Amino acid sequence: MIDQPEDISQMQHLKTMTKQRVVIVGGGFAGLNAAKSLGHVNVEVTLIDRRNFHLFQPLLYQVATGSLSPAQIAFPLRVVLRRQKNATVLLGEVVDIDPSARTLKIDNGEIVPYDTLILAAGATDNFFNHPEWVHFAPGLKSVENATEIRRRILLAFETAEREMDEKLRKAWMTFVVIGGGATGVELSGSIAEIARDILHRDFRRIQTKEAEVILVEGGGRLLASYPPDLSESAEQQLKKLGVRTRPLTMVTGIDSEGVDTKRGDTLERIQAKTVIWAAGVKANPLGKLLAARAGAQTDKSGRVVVEPDCTVKGHPEILVIGDLANFSHDGGQPLPGVAQVGMQMGNYAAKLIAHRLRNEPSKPFHYWDKGNMATIGRAAAVAQIGKVHVGGFVAWAMWLFIHLMYLVGFQNRLVVLLQWCYSYLTFNRGARLITGEKEQLTPVT
Amino acid sequence: MIDQPEDISQMQHLKTMTKQRVVIVGGGFAGLNAAKSLGHVNVEVTLIDRRNFHLFQPLLYQVATGSLSPAQIAFPLRVVLRRQKNATVLLGEVVDIDPSARTLKIDNGEIVPYDTLILAAGATDNFFNHPEWVHFAPGLKSVENATEIRRRILLAFETAEREMDEKLRKAWMTFVVIGGGATGVELSGSIAEIARDILHRDFRRIQTKEAEVILVEGGGRLLASYPPDLSESAEQQLKKLGVRTRPLTMVTGIDSEGVDTKRGDTLERIQAKTVIWAAGVKANPLGKLLAARAGAQTDKSGRVVVEPDCTVKGHPEILVIGDLANFSHDGGQPLPGVAQVGMQMGNYAAKLIAHRLRNEPSKPFHYWDKGNMATIGRAAAVAQIGKVHVGGFVAWAMWLFIHLMYLVGFQNRLVVLLQWCYSYLTFNRGARLITGEKEQLTPVT
Repeated sequence: MIDQPEDISQMQHLKTMTKQRVVIVGGGFAGLNAAKSLGHVNVEVTLIDRRNFHLFQPLLYQVATGSLSPAQIAFPLRVVLRRQKNATVLLGEVVDIDPSARTLKIDNGEIVPYDTLILAAGATDNFFNHPEWVHFAPGLKSVENATEIRRRILLAFETAEREMDEKLRKAWMTFVVIGGGATGVELSGSIAEIARDILHRDFRRIQTKEAEVILVEGGGRLLASYPPDLSESAEQQLKKLGVRTRPLTMVTGIDSEGVDTKRGDTLERIQAKTVIWAAGVKANPLGKLLAARAGAQTDKSGRVVVEPDCTVKGHPEILVIGDLANFSHDGGQPLPGVAQVGMQMGNYAAKLIAHRLRNEPSKPFHYWDKGNMATIGRAAAVAQIGKVHVGGFVAWAMWLFIHLMYLVGFQNRLVVLLQWCYSYLTFNRGARLITGEKEQLTPVT
Repeated sequence: MIDQPEDISQMQHLKTMTKQRVVIVGGGFAGLNAAKSLGHVNVEVTLIDRRNFHLFQPLLYQVATGSLSPAQIAFPLRVVLRRQKNATVLLGEVVDIDPSARTLKIDNGEIVPYDTLILAAGATDNFFNHPEWVHFAPGLKSVENATEIRRRILLAFETAEREMDEKLRKAWMTFVVIGGGATGVELSGSIAEIARDILHRDFRRIQTKEAEVILVEGGGRLLASYPPDLSESAEQQLKKLGVRTRPLTMVTGIDSEGVDTKRGDTLERIQAKTVIWAAGVKANPLGKLLAARAGAQTDKSGRVVVEPDCTVKGHPEILVIGDLANFSHDGGQPLPGVAQVGMQMGNYAAKLIAHRLRNEPSKPFHYWDKGNMATIGRAAAVAQIGKVHVGGFVAWAMWLFIHLMYLVGFQNRLVVLLQWCYSYLTFNRGARLITGEKEQLTPVT
């Protein structure tokens, strides 16, 4: 109350007394947008996240291939919300929900009460009943995942440089990416690109251009959620970079030496020391917890099936948004787990709360599809905006512009833009660090 | 031979036949300078390092306090030596030395032959017979150390923000730095500064300005290797930032809850959740290995006592330089383990080899002391250049200029300078990431 100006009106006093507590779980695109959109709504906002930063996931693959540093795509939540007086950030993991008492419990035992709860805890990798594969084929969901993948890719070339046995050297120079969605396409394209254009001058014994990058996809085409002509375009662009794509191919096993695949009746063993998982996601376990505690319905990937206004059936005070939500327009396909959906849902949630405060009715949520884009390499991408389909350089330039604009929104400084452009265009050589080996954490004894 | 121009002269052919193999172990200031200085000498250079990058250690404390990102102070060795045709980089750890066969063995079993060996493997933290302290008080020697310390510092404030118990909250907001040398002074100054000037706007429940930073030093004054007036100046500047210094205080115990100290007969327990070790270094174990294999003499911190030309007694083909060497001018004090000494020794080693190739005599190594400087905070530092002693802003500006010039030398781009200035002046908010928690490396199940 110290910060209040002296002329507090009766009105404002009343508002303070009745201030609603909105608790948001998750600081990704959905949760952070909800928090920011509530900036001018007369509620108390508490944003809870396990990590102290918002991660710009669409560029995470660039950290994994050594083009960007983690700090260039991660923004501390406290800094983002610093000037928003009605927002508090709490670092913590939600361990329980009590919908009847309207409280959350976080990992330090603290009980957090809410009037409205917004769950935006996102998704994680889905290894489809093979949790052991995570050791051989890490996914790309966190900063740690990205630096670990970077470590493995760079270390593979380093080991190949030292390796005398030709067969082993080939296995070190073979990279398998599993999953032909946007992440898989971007990752395989980037790996081929650094091998071909960047690393070749660094090594003396190996020809990094000879590295093999194999993209394995279970379905018939890459980027299944895009129009077929763009899938075709992506495949052609990847081919130019030297990536070999294997459609209709299922992975039946992964170990430290390679991948077992099955295409129709054909079994194949790919000897590869570096394997990356980009084959699917499942919802954060908070979805299941909500099902148990509030009778919410979940789909097979653990997402919470929500009402047209993003609330949970029978619990209008609980909203589920972003990748954790299964939302369909009029019984259609659920919306995809992309940043745009999360951001629009976050804005919608804030508006819904503002409407309720004024006792006004709200329209159901409607997703406005602005389009989709995926990069394949430098100056190579595919984009779909409504009925317009673009490939190659134009798509890439659009992709670059949109992503840069978004990033700048976070720091609002021209210098950041320049810095980022520079890093991107020069491949930020400094980011090619092999870090995080466990034995390096303690001094050598 | 493919890259050779067609007009290979008889002369050049002869040179190729007799090319000496110089193997350098360690890509720090000493080893990397030796490698670079050998660029125009007609030898084959192999640089072996456990890490794939050169680390600019003088700025590592800024990574630990979230002002710089690792990639801003680390430079991939392959990139640094890319254009130097006579240099090969090998990622690996030396596990044995055979001086009679003139070979090294690296961890993958590869045998590396040498004609001249330059050992520049550096130093690591010395916990003085308390290896268990490393868990409670990490040192600051590697990128991983720095991100771990950053994680601990930021997490301490986050936990304090959530903590309801006042006593515990105080322990989370107490930071102890052990060791009053340059690293300890820089770290404690930076921690006090971020608590006072940077983080205070980010938190809602705690007053980060109330954080206590305690610098414990066993000797009578800080920066013992500097002139007394600069020690006094450093202490005053730290005091202004709110750091409490405890001279003549020995650490007798460290655990997860704090530090036990002893000053004269007075025992004191400091309750602190975050403790950092900056109290001393010891040489890389390769020093002891060399003693066992080649009869080299080592001092009590494991450094190899070298001849006036940096060679090992009885082994003119083995040079030891940098922090691994104990070198004294005319029986004086051994040279300190600072970047300048390492760099000058690296240059000297290259010249010695060039002289030997031409059968010319070499003068003994002579260290030219250009001065010493340590920062305390932004616009606060101490510097000694010959007989000139400077403190405060002037010292800081000098420090900044010299370090930036050095960093630019690596990438030779104005943009890097600007980027770095910008990051430094805005405290690069993005670098304040809490990363590397082990449980985050695998997806949440």
